[in-house]
Amino acid sequence: WKVGKINHVAMAVPNMEKAASMYRDVLGAKVSEKMPQEEHGVYTVFVELGETKIELLHPLGDESPIQNFLDKNKSGGMHHICIEVDNIEEAIKDMKAKNIRTLTPTSKIGAHGKPVIFLHPKDCNGVLVELEEA
Amino acid sequence: WKVGKINHVAMAVPNMEKAASMYRDVLGAKVSEKMPQEEHGVYTVFVELGETKIELLHPLGDESPIQNFLDKNKSGGMHHICIEVDNIEEAIKDMKAKNIRTLTPTSKIGAHGKPVIFLHPKDCNGVLVELEEA
Repeated sequence: WKVGKINHVAMAVPNMEKAASMYRDVLGAKVSEKMPQEEHGVYTVFVELGETKIELLHPLGDESPIQNFLDKNKSGGMHHICIEVDNIEEAIKDMKAKNIRTLTPTSKIGAHGKPVIFLHPKDCNGVLVELEEA
Repeated sequence: WKVGKINHVAMAVPNMEKAASMYRDVLGAKVSEKMPQEEHGVYTVFVELGETKIELLHPLGDESPIQNFLDKNKSGGMHHICIEVDNIEEAIKDMKAKNIRTLTPTSKIGAHGKPVIFLHPKDCNGVLVELEEA
């Protein structure tokens, strides 16, 4: 398997309209509509900036996986980075062989309809790293 | 002025060798040598992942601007994102007109020899945003 480009950098934001406006109206970037991702417990907005996007995340529902992050980071902050791989199952085998923990035992289908897996921040220098099959 | 691509995502790391090894030996990315940036108080390593790089930062000297971040985030973490602009002086004028604060009154020469400026995290949804003239 081979590593590819950075697909996106995800930021959790307390106010989606304000955050989208900052990227659209202040920086002049192309910004998508706000989309509910029911199965992931988040609203998403994508900011297009070349081949790597910024993904703005805001909680959806009572058990959103980013609520805890926003409770600790009230102004918002960088939440994770998503790196593409060409073959996620081979990449996962290799992570396990190299003692990099994954947050789930197997890959899941992510917001883009592609299989993804998260690597444990403690094994990635304090950074939550998502791998996504390109 | 126009916004461009994401130049890099910077991560502060407590152990540069371990961090570089994770990207080089586990993920298989191309990783630069460790470089001292005396005037910025950091060591840098660049990880090449398509057109957006990861910049690994480790403190250099007693007054490194990232020591405080590492004191609060002992495992490391995402520190800032750098977005390219085609004309930084025009961009700075526009930021001021739109009430986005900058951390310094004027641009400075950054690690790549290009003028850069940092925007205040409080005006950018909790995220430290660097603008770099491409």
